[in-house]
Amino acid sequence: MKILVTNDDGVRAPGIAALADALDTLGEVEVVGPSEGQSGAGHGITFLEPLTAERVSIGASRQAWSVAGTPADCVKLGINELLPSAPDLVVSGINAGANRGVDVLYSGTVAAAAEAALMGIPSVAVSLEAADTFDFKGAGAWALRVVAPVLPLGMPKGTMLNINVPAASRVEARGIRLVPQSLLAWEDSYQRRQDPRGRDYYWLSGAVPAPDTGNLTDLRALEEGWVTVTPLQFDLTDHARMNVWRDLWTI
Amino acid sequence: MKILVTNDDGVRAPGIAALADALDTLGEVEVVGPSEGQSGAGHGITFLEPLTAERVSIGASRQAWSVAGTPADCVKLGINELLPSAPDLVVSGINAGANRGVDVLYSGTVAAAAEAALMGIPSVAVSLEAADTFDFKGAGAWALRVVAPVLPLGMPKGTMLNINVPAASRVEARGIRLVPQSLLAWEDSYQRRQDPRGRDYYWLSGAVPAPDTGNLTDLRALEEGWVTVTPLQFDLTDHARMNVWRDLWTI
Repeated sequence: MKILVTNDDGVRAPGIAALADALDTLGEVEVVGPSEGQSGAGHGITFLEPLTAERVSIGASRQAWSVAGTPADCVKLGINELLPSAPDLVVSGINAGANRGVDVLYSGTVAAAAEAALMGIPSVAVSLEAADTFDFKGAGAWALRVVAPVLPLGMPKGTMLNINVPAASRVEARGIRLVPQSLLAWEDSYQRRQDPRGRDYYWLSGAVPAPDTGNLTDLRALEEGWVTVTPLQFDLTDHARMNVWRDLWTI
Repeated sequence: MKILVTNDDGVRAPGIAALADALDTLGEVEVVGPSEGQSGAGHGITFLEPLTAERVSIGASRQAWSVAGTPADCVKLGINELLPSAPDLVVSGINAGANRGVDVLYSGTVAAAAEAALMGIPSVAVSLEAADTFDFKGAGAWALRVVAPVLPLGMPKGTMLNINVPAASRVEARGIRLVPQSLLAWEDSYQRRQDPRGRDYYWLSGAVPAPDTGNLTDLRALEEGWVTVTPLQFDLTDHARMNVWRDLWTI
């Protein structure tokens, strides 16, 4: 099995090397990551300017492609140009910080896996809850445990897996839960400060929303110490609303 | 009614001024746009560095906020800091180029409206098919015709409207169609070139997929000359797959 590994924290981030190491047991791994950190890049792509790519060394002794672009660019360019053949699986991460709830819309880690899913390639995003120290090796082992039963079944075209692993200090007691994405928005605020010339500038300072009290979502399950698995798809159509509004425009 | 207008082509782009002019008839318009073009920015947000904002003049005689950030940043910062009170409606556009099918995942125009929807504010994205000349005024009039019957009904929290208008030369004969998002991926390719130092660089050169032959989607309806309306929501959970995989992880 050929596996493309990417991320949004940059090709030199420790999480991507740990993920590649974990996946070596599953197949032949190629790493294509962004040259710079791309946290919060969303599903950005580069088409108004060109991309460049170079070979770099990462981790203990691994060659990788470093792409001066977004995570989604890494997947597009990797598959179309850089890799000798199309991968059977694309895995993105391990992100330093969770990507649950509406984070999936902002996350470059998730966008890279989404890009592969749109191309019809099975894909997975792996994120590790923020803590003082990140146990990427432990998170990689959890990712393998999640992926193991899915690979033989296959994944439907256009669907990806979004995996979140709790911080190491909290994960021991629990296991894996299949949960839907929470829709709770971050509680955003900005800190307004002044630069030395007296001009305002603004730092985003969002707070994680209090976990949902109804259904068990990825937000609450992660908070409770579960490894969360959420299958994501990319038809955003509000089909229920389509029915309600069916006769609204009769021009 | 208070209306926040934003876009991804930059606050000085002609489409945002035309949209603001069209919406003056509906209420009190405030413009908050990115200082630079952000096409393909996706749902990127800025949180690792601060944002700055300044007042600028756009169009014939309109004051606007210019934010050195992404379209989603404009909505977050506009609502949290720049505007005197929260808007009742957020409208993003008019984008110079269509945003249908999987474009909605890459589009900063759509992301700005999505950001408002996540905040529980009714929102609309408006895009105009590319052509030699862009009739933004005509597209603004179509956007008003689409929005008119929805405003009295209200929009469900978390849902936005995605509107695409065909190029002026093709729109006369048709009307408005409520259609789902197409899931067809772009047919990507890269042109590999060499810089003067002999290093490779890559230009993304995607082709619009051939329209779906099954259900009428936004991709095909726009191709056929209809103004398309698609309600979008942001729960990406693949609920059908949740049922299939319910007992897969029993660790």
